[in-house]
Amino acid sequence: MKITIIGCYSAMPKIGNNLSSQVIEIQNEIFLIDCGEGTQVGLRKNKVKFSRIKHIFISHLHGDHYFGLIGLICTFSLLNRSADLNIYGPTGIKDLIINQIKASSSWTKYRLIFHELCSEKSESIFISDYIQVFTIPLSHRIYTNGFLFKEINLPRKINIDAVHDSNVSIAYSNKLKQGFDVVNENGILINNHLLTFEGFSPKSYAYCSDTEYHESIVKVISNCDALYHESTFLEKHKVLSKTTKHSTAKQAGKIARLANVNLLILGHYSSRYDNINDFKTEAETEFNNVLLSEDNKIIEI
Amino acid sequence: MKITIIGCYSAMPKIGNNLSSQVIEIQNEIFLIDCGEGTQVGLRKNKVKFSRIKHIFISHLHGDHYFGLIGLICTFSLLNRSADLNIYGPTGIKDLIINQIKASSSWTKYRLIFHELCSEKSESIFISDYIQVFTIPLSHRIYTNGFLFKEINLPRKINIDAVHDSNVSIAYSNKLKQGFDVVNENGILINNHLLTFEGFSPKSYAYCSDTEYHESIVKVISNCDALYHESTFLEKHKVLSKTTKHSTAKQAGKIARLANVNLLILGHYSSRYDNINDFKTEAETEFNNVLLSEDNKIIEI
Repeated sequence: MKITIIGCYSAMPKIGNNLSSQVIEIQNEIFLIDCGEGTQVGLRKNKVKFSRIKHIFISHLHGDHYFGLIGLICTFSLLNRSADLNIYGPTGIKDLIINQIKASSSWTKYRLIFHELCSEKSESIFISDYIQVFTIPLSHRIYTNGFLFKEINLPRKINIDAVHDSNVSIAYSNKLKQGFDVVNENGILINNHLLTFEGFSPKSYAYCSDTEYHESIVKVISNCDALYHESTFLEKHKVLSKTTKHSTAKQAGKIARLANVNLLILGHYSSRYDNINDFKTEAETEFNNVLLSEDNKIIEI
Repeated sequence: MKITIIGCYSAMPKIGNNLSSQVIEIQNEIFLIDCGEGTQVGLRKNKVKFSRIKHIFISHLHGDHYFGLIGLICTFSLLNRSADLNIYGPTGIKDLIINQIKASSSWTKYRLIFHELCSEKSESIFISDYIQVFTIPLSHRIYTNGFLFKEINLPRKINIDAVHDSNVSIAYSNKLKQGFDVVNENGILINNHLLTFEGFSPKSYAYCSDTEYHESIVKVISNCDALYHESTFLEKHKVLSKTTKHSTAKQAGKIARLANVNLLILGHYSSRYDNINDFKTEAETEFNNVLLSEDNKIIEI
């Protein structure tokens, strides 16, 4: 599982401060989370192939999380995309996008499929052979979801020697990875577990932005391998974090501790702070494995 | 009159290729024309003070000319702007912007004043003491206007020696610049022309993007000091320019010649071309004073 931070700053784009956007690569699929203004240039800087983006998840309809989406959709059109594009976001996102397309008379030649979200409870919104995505209901000034990416049914690893010794054709490798028993070249059914090892242990990643301190997310994200939790403010601006419904770095650390995650990644920094290391120091008073997100940083989980 | 090219490329933002946007400074007022994605970062790079922007002109509702507007409006809010902001653009622009503000529940504390345009004829849309702005109806795939900025009633220059010799108080300097006769300290009315010189000759600047070759603009822009005319394509892609209703560099040159302007500025280049000098060479077959716009270039007229 690989996370590319396209942008990790809040509010407004500045020279050298990209807005919220991340690319998650899992099992050869890539997912885009949030899409602030400037995201498409950020994707190019990080050499993300546009054609590989098939699912975009938008946490909420504050501009720093989605104003880059309409431009990206139009760019896909200009690049003659034909593959479907799935967009998951709050109810209302479809009208906002479609009305802008309508005004420009530039309909996409590919299919735009909107999955509008309104539930206040965590729900499964995407599932494929190896990946499932759930919403994480957050508490912000407007309706907001985080997203939990979980590997599921990971492929088993083939025991090449056993496959050879058992006279099984390598053409069955996909079946074997999926856990099926197969028939060998002598017509005998061979138990999958004799031909494969356990796969990698499934990983999970939770993206939580934007939100005030909200303990009820703990049960949804508990034990996940990595948690990105917003830390717009430091404790010295706790009053501001309350009125704007954002979190402090210390609060992010507390959520990470309560949820017993392995790694906490901080981000969505207010640009009022000169030194983002202060966020790490503050979160470490609550939790001891903290990483700072930075624009264009790659994090392997 | 000073033009700052924030961006001059067409279609989609790329690393090092900014989308359409220009800042026009006239008589200490600044005007923003078009606002593609990334414009606000471009404005910062060019050290344009956000608080000085009071009038934004949007040529048409293709994304490369206005997708950066909603973000700029929100940034103004975050910076606690209180001054009115006037937006001039095609009918429909108000709903597109307001619906995005509504979805984010982030109303601006300053007044947003929309001037929606629908006329097919050139009309005056802004006038102040020294500046008047007219639309230039263009011919593109959707309703599009260029904008003609004209200096008017330029202040007269004060003849300091004459003012002193005539015993006139310097407190009258504004009245004098505006052409009024004034009373001196002995109670005698002095003719303005004895105390002032002619002001600078008024300049004019026409912005024409996007448009196919459209001779009927010539009468609107004739004799202007500088003409920015889009040149998305070179003649070798003339077929493409026709189907997309854009112009070639040669056609831009021809319009400049027919309109008898002083300077032609090219821009809105398709990023398919490696060398923008080819646009200049081609336009020069029709007109001999051609300048290439480039991102972050300043042009004094």
